[in-house]
Amino acid sequence: MTTYTISEINTILKGELIGNTTEKITGPEQLQSAKSNHISFIGSQKYLKYWADSKACAVVVNDNIKIEPSDNRAIIKVKNADLAMAKILELFNPPPPVFDTDIHPTTVIHDTAKIGSGCKIGPNCYVGKDVELGNNVILYPNVCVFDETIIGDNTVIWSGTVIRERCIIGSHCIFHTNVSIGADGFGYRPSDDGRGLVKIPQIGNVIIGHYVEIGANSCVDRAKFSSTIVGDGCKIDNLVQIAHNSIMGRSCIMAGHSGLAGSVTLGDGVIIGGSASIKDHTTIHSGATVGAGSGVVGDVEAGKTVLGYPAQDARDMLKQWVAMRQFMKKQ
Amino acid sequence: MTTYTISEINTILKGELIGNTTEKITGPEQLQSAKSNHISFIGSQKYLKYWADSKACAVVVNDNIKIEPSDNRAIIKVKNADLAMAKILELFNPPPPVFDTDIHPTTVIHDTAKIGSGCKIGPNCYVGKDVELGNNVILYPNVCVFDETIIGDNTVIWSGTVIRERCIIGSHCIFHTNVSIGADGFGYRPSDDGRGLVKIPQIGNVIIGHYVEIGANSCVDRAKFSSTIVGDGCKIDNLVQIAHNSIMGRSCIMAGHSGLAGSVTLGDGVIIGGSASIKDHTTIHSGATVGAGSGVVGDVEAGKTVLGYPAQDARDMLKQWVAMRQFMKKQ
Amino acid sequence: MTTYTISEINTILKGELIGNTTEKITGPEQLQSAKSNHISFIGSQKYLKYWADSKACAVVVNDNIKIEPSDNRAIIKVKNADLAMAKILELFNPPPPVFDTDIHPTTVIHDTAKIGSGCKIGPNCYVGKDVELGNNVILYPNVCVFDETIIGDNTVIWSGTVIRERCIIGSHCIFHTNVSIGADGFGYRPSDDGRGLVKIPQIGNVIIGHYVEIGANSCVDRAKFSSTIVGDGCKIDNLVQIAHNSIMGRSCIMAGHSGLAGSVTLGDGVIIGGSASIKDHTTIHSGATVGAGSGVVGDVEAGKTVLGYPAQDARDMLKQWVAMRQFMKKQ
Repeated sequence: MTTYTISEINTILKGELIGNTTEKITGPEQLQSAKSNHISFIGSQKYLKYWADSKACAVVVNDNIKIEPSDNRAIIKVKNADLAMAKILELFNPPPPVFDTDIHPTTVIHDTAKIGSGCKIGPNCYVGKDVELGNNVILYPNVCVFDETIIGDNTVIWSGTVIRERCIIGSHCIFHTNVSIGADGFGYRPSDDGRGLVKIPQIGNVIIGHYVEIGANSCVDRAKFSSTIVGDGCKIDNLVQIAHNSIMGRSCIMAGHSGLAGSVTLGDGVIIGGSASIKDHTTIHSGATVGAGSGVVGDVEAGKTVLGYPAQDARDMLKQWVAMRQFMKKQ
Repeated sequence: MTTYTISEINTILKGELIGNTTEKITGPEQLQSAKSNHISFIGSQKYLKYWADSKACAVVVNDNIKIEPSDNRAIIKVKNADLAMAKILELFNPPPPVFDTDIHPTTVIHDTAKIGSGCKIGPNCYVGKDVELGNNVILYPNVCVFDETIIGDNTVIWSGTVIRERCIIGSHCIFHTNVSIGADGFGYRPSDDGRGLVKIPQIGNVIIGHYVEIGANSCVDRAKFSSTIVGDGCKIDNLVQIAHNSIMGRSCIMAGHSGLAGSVTLGDGVIIGGSASIKDHTTIHSGATVGAGSGVVGDVEAGKTVLGYPAQDARDMLKQWVAMRQFMKKQ
Repeated sequence: MTTYTISEINTILKGELIGNTTEKITGPEQLQSAKSNHISFIGSQKYLKYWADSKACAVVVNDNIKIEPSDNRAIIKVKNADLAMAKILELFNPPPPVFDTDIHPTTVIHDTAKIGSGCKIGPNCYVGKDVELGNNVILYPNVCVFDETIIGDNTVIWSGTVIRERCIIGSHCIFHTNVSIGADGFGYRPSDDGRGLVKIPQIGNVIIGHYVEIGANSCVDRAKFSSTIVGDGCKIDNLVQIAHNSIMGRSCIMAGHSGLAGSVTLGDGVIIGGSASIKDHTTIHSGATVGAGSGVVGDVEAGKTVLGYPAQDARDMLKQWVAMRQFMKKQ
């Protein structure tokens, strides 16, 4: 097990070390459940009360927090405890699950597929005709990648994920478990007798940029024609729906249960809160934020924050909610 | 690669061909990303501006749109550009992923299962005891079908989908990736000491009609007893929840993230918008529409459109939203 | 097929038997679709009308319902028809899908994994390094359990479910199809140049108690550090999102499409309605109820019921909704 001394950690964090501890630190833990070889964090005054009774031998705190070290327990003051925590998590990040063989004999790979160097493919995967995997791609057990799909270098695909045919996935991506990429978009037309629905073929694909992360059980549908596009650096949480022909710019964030209906356009750096939904054919311009639980029914200007259902300017919506409560109290 | 001339396409669309192009058309593409061998579409005046600079050699437009052909670029005018697009997508629909063997040797099929003629079953599937597959059923890799389930002719099941025991699936259905059919309904009773919850066995099944499409990562739970039923021609998007003992009529549409709580009844042709939820034991009568994001807490009359949370008549709800904004401006 | 006489069933229910039937009862069915060897239920006056035309040979009713037996058709009066139904479902619960072999030869189990006695593992599963399965654990086909994860006795995991490394799962749990346990929490920090997002390693795990049920396609993310915790007896429906570092007490209920953002704390016996969302870092104290479709943005007191978006006291919210409609009618 990797351990660090408090001064080794402080060297990395470039903080101010107050007090000392001789413990060999084995990892981070919350104040209440920490043991004596754990380091913990206090980012806000309200968690300060747990320090006295905690067994943690060290704590990283924001430099505006008033706190004293004690016997064999040290404090590291930093400008940003959250950033320091991220660095400590990188230090203690355990290795990923092992592969005993690079390409497991139970996996089925089509003769025509091209597999880059350093790839690891677990048991019971399927890699279809003319698929191209770059170098160092990891497919955990039970992943399916269909015909002619291309996956870039160093991308990691977790178990249960399915990537349909003719999609293009960038490098350094992470797709978590049970993700669905490239399923048919949801499109029908009335049948000729007007009494039913006929499927419109969805002949496009999905293009996903580099450094994209997609959460467990999320879905990105293939385009009706042309492409559904997720830009470089986008981060998508669990159970998110991205419908056909939507286009996301760079470094957008979509939180859990949020969704884009068809042909939505997001600029760069757009943030979509949890459970928020965006109507089809709308545009959310760069730097805009959609609050959790909102329903957006029209275009949103760059940099604006919207909230509510139907979504409007967040400050107006908050005022409206307050006014409603006031008004009701008078009834 | 299949190509068509502009006059071959016009023959199929039965439109009015204006101008001409000698290009061999390889497929549809959006105006802005089209190359010279692509055909594109203009369904609304607002996209007309992209025509001049597009490289597309042809465009299909609604006949009320004013547009001129140019050098080696043709126009086809039609009554309904969306319908024409659907026909063109059918023309250029590429073949589905290949199967090198009809039934892959890595798949596990119980001795008692009956497999119709023309079935294709990919690697690493599981087909349980007494399962019956009709003719021409396709199971892509990593599909599981449990004991005594029956699947009709020409139904296609994509990877990661699981169909539990004793379900009945119609013909010509499409289930996309990671769908869950027949998981236990969500039912508990208080334990005898009143301090916990005891599972109520869910001994019913799921019955799904013909020509039903179910989107990626959607769920249809088995009934407590009797059946959860999805009628012929229903189209269900991604991440949709259909709880135990719900009954859907014919040709209903449920958009992404929508859900039916237990024992909901939908008539025929009901449309449920994205992220809308329907309370348990309610009935939405035929032809009714539930707006996106709505929460329905009571029965909805045939043909009515409801909106909001709690959902009410859509016109009333829209008026209420407008009035609220007016009222707030005066505060 | 198991059958029971009406008096055998009445002995179990300890009800009042009125009239008699000589039918051998094969199972429960709804009044409208029942055949002559079915028993049915009437819990409320409004379903009484279906009795006369039903072919069911017997019906279990709440003792306040006025109903007469008829020729070879019996009635059992009980205090609680729902509870009686649960007991009857237990009587007729069919056996689960068969395993022809205890551990299927196509499944891949790491040499170091410890498998308890009586375990059954279906085809095409993956069990990683140092995994420990207790006694009588069932893994249906296509389940993946990653390195160092521990699963307690008698737990059942359905197909398509993935449990990531270093998680701890209790005994007597049921995880339905396509569940994702232990995917990375959703955490990023701004890149040093401020123009992108850098992944924060998620080095914690998931701890799930005993008698927990998790619905199809639901997700429980691993903690950033420390653990995401689901307490004993919690019941989680389909398509539910539980984000990193959330902590649930005992016997909580989360209905379909509901979600906990990061670091949410639930007390014991909390009920979260369908599609409800809880903001990160909030606490819902024991015995509180969150209505369906609500968005909770602040702590909720023990025993309180909240509703709406943003959620407030349910009675206040209901009054507000009524008042709004009244107000609008006057406009």
